[in-house]
Amino acid sequence: MLTAEQNETLTRTGPGTPMGDVFRRYWMPALLSRELPGPDCPPVRLKILGEDFIAFRDSTGRVGIVEPRCPHRGANLFFGRNEACGLRCAYHGWKFDAEGRCVDIPNVTPDVAERMKPRAAIRALHTAEAGDIVWAYFGQPDDAPAVPDFEFAAVPAEHRFVGKKRQQCNWAQACEGGLDTAHFSYLHAGINEGRKVGLHQVGRVPSGSGDTREPPRLARLRWLIEDGAPRFTVLDHAAGLLLCAARTADDDHLYWRMTQFLMPNHSLTPGNFSEDTALANTWVPIDDTSCWIFCYAWHPDRPIGDRERERLSRGAGIFAEVDDDYVPIRRRENDYLLDRELQRNASFTGIAGISEQDQAIADSQGLIADRTRELLCQTDLGVVRFRDLMFEAAQGVREGETPLGARNARAYRVRSGDAVAPHDLAVEEVVRERFGERWGVRLNAQDP
Amino acid sequence: MLTAEQNETLTRTGPGTPMGDVFRRYWMPALLSRELPGPDCPPVRLKILGEDFIAFRDSTGRVGIVEPRCPHRGANLFFGRNEACGLRCAYHGWKFDAEGRCVDIPNVTPDVAERMKPRAAIRALHTAEAGDIVWAYFGQPDDAPAVPDFEFAAVPAEHRFVGKKRQQCNWAQACEGGLDTAHFSYLHAGINEGRKVGLHQVGRVPSGSGDTREPPRLARLRWLIEDGAPRFTVLDHAAGLLLCAARTADDDHLYWRMTQFLMPNHSLTPGNFSEDTALANTWVPIDDTSCWIFCYAWHPDRPIGDRERERLSRGAGIFAEVDDDYVPIRRRENDYLLDRELQRNASFTGIAGISEQDQAIADSQGLIADRTRELLCQTDLGVVRFRDLMFEAAQGVREGETPLGARNARAYRVRSGDAVAPHDLAVEEVVRERFGERWGVRLNAQDP
Amino acid sequence: MLTAEQNETLTRTGPGTPMGDVFRRYWMPALLSRELPGPDCPPVRLKILGEDFIAFRDSTGRVGIVEPRCPHRGANLFFGRNEACGLRCAYHGWKFDAEGRCVDIPNVTPDVAERMKPRAAIRALHTAEAGDIVWAYFGQPDDAPAVPDFEFAAVPAEHRFVGKKRQQCNWAQACEGGLDTAHFSYLHAGINEGRKVGLHQVGRVPSGSGDTREPPRLARLRWLIEDGAPRFTVLDHAAGLLLCAARTADDDHLYWRMTQFLMPNHSLTPGNFSEDTALANTWVPIDDTSCWIFCYAWHPDRPIGDRERERLSRGAGIFAEVDDDYVPIRRRENDYLLDRELQRNASFTGIAGISEQDQAIADSQGLIADRTRELLCQTDLGVVRFRDLMFEAAQGVREGETPLGARNARAYRVRSGDAVAPHDLAVEEVVRERFGERWGVRLNAQDP
Repeated sequence: MLTAEQNETLTRTGPGTPMGDVFRRYWMPALLSRELPGPDCPPVRLKILGEDFIAFRDSTGRVGIVEPRCPHRGANLFFGRNEACGLRCAYHGWKFDAEGRCVDIPNVTPDVAERMKPRAAIRALHTAEAGDIVWAYFGQPDDAPAVPDFEFAAVPAEHRFVGKKRQQCNWAQACEGGLDTAHFSYLHAGINEGRKVGLHQVGRVPSGSGDTREPPRLARLRWLIEDGAPRFTVLDHAAGLLLCAARTADDDHLYWRMTQFLMPNHSLTPGNFSEDTALANTWVPIDDTSCWIFCYAWHPDRPIGDRERERLSRGAGIFAEVDDDYVPIRRRENDYLLDRELQRNASFTGIAGISEQDQAIADSQGLIADRTRELLCQTDLGVVRFRDLMFEAAQGVREGETPLGARNARAYRVRSGDAVAPHDLAVEEVVRERFGERWGVRLNAQDP
Repeated sequence: MLTAEQNETLTRTGPGTPMGDVFRRYWMPALLSRELPGPDCPPVRLKILGEDFIAFRDSTGRVGIVEPRCPHRGANLFFGRNEACGLRCAYHGWKFDAEGRCVDIPNVTPDVAERMKPRAAIRALHTAEAGDIVWAYFGQPDDAPAVPDFEFAAVPAEHRFVGKKRQQCNWAQACEGGLDTAHFSYLHAGINEGRKVGLHQVGRVPSGSGDTREPPRLARLRWLIEDGAPRFTVLDHAAGLLLCAARTADDDHLYWRMTQFLMPNHSLTPGNFSEDTALANTWVPIDDTSCWIFCYAWHPDRPIGDRERERLSRGAGIFAEVDDDYVPIRRRENDYLLDRELQRNASFTGIAGISEQDQAIADSQGLIADRTRELLCQTDLGVVRFRDLMFEAAQGVREGETPLGARNARAYRVRSGDAVAPHDLAVEEVVRERFGERWGVRLNAQDP
Repeated sequence: MLTAEQNETLTRTGPGTPMGDVFRRYWMPALLSRELPGPDCPPVRLKILGEDFIAFRDSTGRVGIVEPRCPHRGANLFFGRNEACGLRCAYHGWKFDAEGRCVDIPNVTPDVAERMKPRAAIRALHTAEAGDIVWAYFGQPDDAPAVPDFEFAAVPAEHRFVGKKRQQCNWAQACEGGLDTAHFSYLHAGINEGRKVGLHQVGRVPSGSGDTREPPRLARLRWLIEDGAPRFTVLDHAAGLLLCAARTADDDHLYWRMTQFLMPNHSLTPGNFSEDTALANTWVPIDDTSCWIFCYAWHPDRPIGDRERERLSRGAGIFAEVDDDYVPIRRRENDYLLDRELQRNASFTGIAGISEQDQAIADSQGLIADRTRELLCQTDLGVVRFRDLMFEAAQGVREGETPLGARNARAYRVRSGDAVAPHDLAVEEVVRERFGERWGVRLNAQDP
């Protein structure tokens, strides 16, 4: 439970807010690279952290993210022409390059133009591309750190699939949903003959732990349902937190689901073993009541095949089924096409799609969740630690410090995932066995 | 004419407002019973007096009306599962019964759950069902009075038809429309060859009082048009007011239309004689700029036949033609499908439907009518007395008194309707002859 | 560049604002006459300068523009009946004439009605019709000046075509677009093989000044493109400004485009020679974030033929392609149907229609353009002088003076248009040769 003031601090990221200052010290995913498909392609509108921009890819392929306003008379550069290494205003032809420099003022004499250009520069964000994502940095370009070294961006392009989806609420509550594996036992459950079951059991004869025909990969779906009160342990590292949740498995073992939270708005999801595709999300505030959720799927060792790629692009797992503007088909306005008959017979929520279930419940907390009224319990430990970390970052930035991980790209080379281990194996051992050095960089390690 | 402050007092019914405090001392129609058609049916959203709720019918058929917010992390219970005598939150499975008690917290250990449950109770309104209506009481359940004893609720179900319709303005101006029978001579008039006529005369050769073929039941429609300046007398009783309006009829008689206003937001309509179906309305604020109008039709002595029932359900008389969400087809956004050709040739307004005509003119007064600029005249006497009664109630509640009728269920056993009487018969005599004891319970009578 | 306070002054025209006071000293185009097609036709809603009205044409053909509110109980007269020389309220039949006088109160006795009528008068604007336009004057009727003597209104009806279109931003920035002929070299340019060209050259083999086959009327389109930095001279006259912009033409000549700005919100466009149809606009604020642009086309000496009339009515030149409510088909909500392929290959903007290009760029400056951040240059001289004139008018009105032109109808008998002249001919000579006395009435001339 937070005070009203804390809730404001956590959720507001506009210019001049404490959390806005934190976000502006990190690289932010701004667009999918494919939204700017080639040199001189159409410019696109963009809003991040409550600020409006126009993004364009210039003739050399470089991405510019600039303020939308022509300094001459304030026309919007969205209507401009993307041509010959610059964006030209449609009103009187003033032209700006990807760094915001004014490179042409054609409606005055050349000598006057030369004198005016320096005053006509517009704000531009520092940009980079990695992992098929356009990243933006709000600080001074000459002071920009390296882009965080996510594994999804380091693997070959064919090992990766990325996407995004719009969420119609504040970023923080949506992010908190990603740090709370406990809800999987409910929100994402199936229903079979009136009882909560794993999704794989919907419409089938229920199987138990004694069922020798149960494939190993389905056992964990059963454990998720059988133990709805996982026990949390949280480990700190140099870019965030490793949230470890233990559920009772078969034969005196525990089923561990381990989630990464990476400052200030990334999460690597649990639910995968070494052989599975890994998944991650970033929650990027559009404004204080909506955000983009960037979605990443990748495999360290093998390409993502056509069939899996097709499935992800149609909205499987953390990917939503979206329209051409990346707005989910099932969304707030249409109650996520909730089907009460489905809810009665097959699905805990009656909403189709894991992603859509997550989006519905986060939206349902309000445009900005009111955390002054909450009854937190032990499965909310990850959520609590996330908030603490964000408040520490806000306090640190206020005092001139670099927030956790902001200048430590390699601290983002971590992994998340699941493990099954004897019930008496210490969590640190479980983590080492599953991830090796990739569980997290020790807090005091120096970036080389 | 009111002061700006009085207008605020009359119209605002949210939590903590003077009139909101008055409304919260009475039972309110909350839903049609058929909106919750059976045990464990889908929950529905509900807003009354500016407050949001979720209504559900549990496995035993009991209706719960609870705050929408799960106390754990604030997810909305609309997305919950209505199962086994309770509503279960979709996020982590917390469960609440129809009285708002938390009956399950499955994501913690059982002992922790037992300790947390008392703190996890949510607000629930006291509910009752009568007359195919779900009623809600905002006060303490152990202090709830009896549900008002309306005749429509007392008759056998087959003698009754109920419905509702959304009105897109403040409740009070819509209610005032129901207390003002004078407008019937204009708003609901027909047009024949450019002249105002009764609706039955549209498109026919005009008939006069000398027309011996005129059926008695059509004479009153003629009188409504011929005398557009009725004289009002208002009688007080223990649940409200009987508003008696006299128009000149034939042969030295008066045509009386008598309307009941019952505290704080009910009206029994005029327009019926003993043999006719009786009609009534309740205006329930959704918020300060919209309300539900509940509509009741009943006959004391006979069932409502299939044909009449069909006619009412399609939107006859006080019933509107509505969509699946009870929103009128002809409404503010589409100017009530006003047909200027119809207005020229057949209808005073050009809007189809008595109900729609009423709704249009009330909406047209603004989202909240400005009563600081008015030129009231004698046909507004009912409106004036209604306002006085509401202000008295607000003053009384402020001083700790029970407002008129709030704990006097039997004072609602009244009737409204029409009479034709010699012009020199005193109004009290007209009333006694028409209604007997059912004109109203004397103000000082004690509830047995 | 303006201060924030100046920007407010320039753009706000609601009741009680300085610029609102200026506008209320002039006649305003309120409707196209054809929007009230005949006696007793349906009344229409109307908003001007932030104030709501109902307009109707009475049985004698006279136009009334009255406040929408019935003084009795505040019902909206839009729902009223337009009948027998007055508008009758649909609620209780009160009736008002075109001057706002209450002429019937039928729901009280006749003697009471007579006493109430004087108190029941409603506000009515003074109205006139000229040039197929309904004009309104907000001041006292007995003090109304003559309607401005525009040429388009003085010519025979068959020499004229008028229309209107809705603009989704503040009036002043849209008006400024009309005073800035420099943008024609960019916003309205065509594209041919990646280069900016005149619209006539789109899709053709480029022609140059040496091309002997170039018709004279196309040369000016070429000059518009070849010289994108016209030099401005501004001349004052008794109703506003003549803005003269010179571009380099062929053979040591200058191509002059001369625009009239007429107080407080009219412009006669350049782009025409004597043989061409003349065009003009008025920007009438609806509220501070939208306006009607009235569009006038006329020829002094000849009728506008069926073909040209048809072309204008479908949205050519300054006329937009509009729907039945005069809202442009290509508008803010649909990004003016911007076609990026068209923008790449044929059109500087990718937006179809000169009018739509103008509307898009004005809207793009924001709902109200922020003039506290601007980098004005020499082509903005007309814009600067326009603002100065408006501020002078606001100051003058505050001090009790009659603003420029407000009582000088004949000062509006001016013309605009183009000329080609030797480069060393003084602008005053160019103006005299092209317009004679019709360039503008000298500032100190007395109205006869």
